[in-house]
Amino acid sequence: MKGIRQLADYLDISIGTVSRALNGKPDVNDDTRRRVLEAAEKLGYVANQSGRSLRQGATNVIGLMTGSDTQAVENADNFFLGVTDGLQSVFSTHNLDLIVLPCPAEEDPDEYLKRMVARRMVDAMVISSTSRIDKRVDFLKQTRLPFVTLGRTGSSTDHAWIDLDFEGVARTAVARLAAAGHRSIAVAAPDTDINLGYIFLEGYRKGLEDASLPYDEKLIIRARSSEQGGYHAASEWLQMRPRPTALILIYELMAIGLYRRLAEVKLRAGQDLAVIGFREGPSGQFLEPRLTSFRMSLRDLGVSVGKTLLSTMPAYSSFYPQQPKHIVWPMQLIPGDSDITNLQSR
Amino acid sequence: MKGIRQLADYLDISIGTVSRALNGKPDVNDDTRRRVLEAAEKLGYVANQSGRSLRQGATNVIGLMTGSDTQAVENADNFFLGVTDGLQSVFSTHNLDLIVLPCPAEEDPDEYLKRMVARRMVDAMVISSTSRIDKRVDFLKQTRLPFVTLGRTGSSTDHAWIDLDFEGVARTAVARLAAAGHRSIAVAAPDTDINLGYIFLEGYRKGLEDASLPYDEKLIIRARSSEQGGYHAASEWLQMRPRPTALILIYELMAIGLYRRLAEVKLRAGQDLAVIGFREGPSGQFLEPRLTSFRMSLRDLGVSVGKTLLSTMPAYSSFYPQQPKHIVWPMQLIPGDSDITNLQSR
Repeated sequence: MKGIRQLADYLDISIGTVSRALNGKPDVNDDTRRRVLEAAEKLGYVANQSGRSLRQGATNVIGLMTGSDTQAVENADNFFLGVTDGLQSVFSTHNLDLIVLPCPAEEDPDEYLKRMVARRMVDAMVISSTSRIDKRVDFLKQTRLPFVTLGRTGSSTDHAWIDLDFEGVARTAVARLAAAGHRSIAVAAPDTDINLGYIFLEGYRKGLEDASLPYDEKLIIRARSSEQGGYHAASEWLQMRPRPTALILIYELMAIGLYRRLAEVKLRAGQDLAVIGFREGPSGQFLEPRLTSFRMSLRDLGVSVGKTLLSTMPAYSSFYPQQPKHIVWPMQLIPGDSDITNLQSR
Repeated sequence: MKGIRQLADYLDISIGTVSRALNGKPDVNDDTRRRVLEAAEKLGYVANQSGRSLRQGATNVIGLMTGSDTQAVENADNFFLGVTDGLQSVFSTHNLDLIVLPCPAEEDPDEYLKRMVARRMVDAMVISSTSRIDKRVDFLKQTRLPFVTLGRTGSSTDHAWIDLDFEGVARTAVARLAAAGHRSIAVAAPDTDINLGYIFLEGYRKGLEDASLPYDEKLIIRARSSEQGGYHAASEWLQMRPRPTALILIYELMAIGLYRRLAEVKLRAGQDLAVIGFREGPSGQFLEPRLTSFRMSLRDLGVSVGKTLLSTMPAYSSFYPQQPKHIVWPMQLIPGDSDITNLQSR
C-alpha cells in the first residue's frame, strides 16, 4: 500500500498526476490541482500522513477502549453503539475520527492499553468499564496522553471522568419502593470489582437510611450482569426466608432471566415481587410486565464524554471553555408495571 | 507525544536510556538493552513505528468496519463483540491488533471507508453489513488492500467472504413448520437493502416449494430488525385474514416485541402462533415460552473470518493453505417452546 495510491483511488485519477499536483509541478491543470489539494485536506493528508504524524504528533484519531472481561461484554450490547454515535458527532466537527480498541478477553487490560498507546495511533483515549483500582488511569497520567474515563475509579479522582448516576438510581429506587410500603428490599449487584457496583451499593445503603430501613448484607444478591444473572438472582430470591418483597437490578437485561425463573414457579414481577431495573432499553419496554427503569440518552452521554475529552486537549480546549471535567450523569425514573405489587393482599 | 516516551513509560526507565539502547550505544547494560529491544519488538516498535510503517507498508493492525445505519446498529448488540473475540484470537498469534471502525450514522459508508483506508492505519479490512449492491467491495478491490466481507453482496462474488446460512435457516424453518401441519407461514423480513434479506427470502421461497406450498407475497411482513420491529410484525399479523398460523423472524430480539404485542391481546406464541426466531441468544433462551432458534458460535465465526482474511495476505497465507475463500456458515436448529401449536384444536 502506497499512501498516494489511496488519494489517487479516492479521486480516480493517476498516481503521477496526484504526485505532481501535491508537489506543485506546473503540468497539472488548476481544477485538478484544487481537487487533489481539497481531497488531501479532507483526508488529513498533507502530502504524507505518516510523515506528518511524526512531525506534528497528531493522528487526528481518538481511541475508545472497551472492556475485556465477560461481564463488560455481556453488559455492552448496544450501550457502546449509542455512546459511539454521540462521540463521533462531536469529533467529526474537528475532523477527528473515532476508533474502537476492544481489549481481548484473555489479555491484561493494562498491558493492552500500553501497547495501543505505544502504537501511536491515537491523539487521546476514552477508557470505559473502570474498576475500583484502575492502573490504566495511572498509566495514562504518566504518558500525558489526554484521556477521559467513562466511569469513576476509587483510586483517582482528579482526572477527567463522566459516570452514570448509579448512586442516585439506587437511592431513588429504594425511596420509591419504601414509599409503596416495602420494608424488605433486595438488590442484585455485580460479582466483580467494577467500580459502579460499589457506587450502586452505596446508593442502596443511603436509600435505606433515608427510609429508616435497616441495611442487611443478606439482601445483596451477587450475580452476573446478564439474562443468566437475572435467572440466578430470582433463584436466590426464591430461597430467601422471609422473601424480600422487592428487588432492584443493576442491569436491565437481568429482568429477562428473572421473569423466566418466576414464570417457572407461576410467579410474576409486578404481582409477587416488585422489580426495578436499571437503564430503560428496548427489551425492558417490551417485556410483559413492562420494566420500571431509568431513562437516559446514550447519544447525549457520548456527546458530553467527547466534549470533556476535547476540553482537556490544548488544540481543542478553547472550543469547550465551560465543559465540566467531572460529570455525574442524571437518569430519570420511568414507571413501568414491574414494581406495582399489592402488599396488603399477601 | 514522542514515540520513545511510550517505550520508556512502558519499561519505566528513562527516555535517554531507551534511546541509547535502541541506537546501540555502549553505555547501556546488557539486561536493559535486552528489555528495551524485547519491548520494542513486542510493541512492533523497531526504533520508529511510523517511519517503519512508511518503509514496510505494514501497520500490523486490521480494521473491522461496522455498519452505520440504524438497523445495523440495532442488530449489532453483542454480535460483533462475539465475532471480535474470535478475530482477535487469530490475529494475536501473528502480533496483529484489531481496531473497530464504526461508520457514523450520518456518514456515507463508501466515503467513510475511503477515508479510513487513506489514513493508512490498517493492513487489511473486514467489512460487515453488506448491502445488495455494495460499492465498498469494488473500492477495496481497486486499492488492493486485502479484505474479507462478513456477508455476501449481489454485485461481487469473487472476493473473500463468509456469510451465515440465511437460506438454510429459512428453508429449515419452513420445512419444520410444514411438517407440523402449517399451511400458511408468514415471515418477518428486513425493510432495507441489506443483502441477507434477499437470501433469507430466497430460502423461504425454496422451503415453500419443497413443501409444495404456494408462495404469497402478502405473507411477507417488512419490519425493522429490533424489538419494535417484532411488535410491529405482530400487529400486522393480527390484522391478516385469514391469519397465518406460523411466523419466521429474521432477528431473534424481534420475539420480545412480538411476545408483548400478543400478550396485549391475550395471545401467546407456541399456542396461538408458531414462532421460529433466528440466532439463539441469551434473550431467546430465557423468554417464556423459550424461542425456537438456530445455534452458532460467534467466536468460531470470528476465527474463520480472521483465517480467511489472513489467507489472502501474502505475509500470512502460508499459515492457512486450506482455508476456504468463501464460506456459508451453518447453523443448527435448537427446538424451543415457541413453535409448538395444536393446529387441530382451532
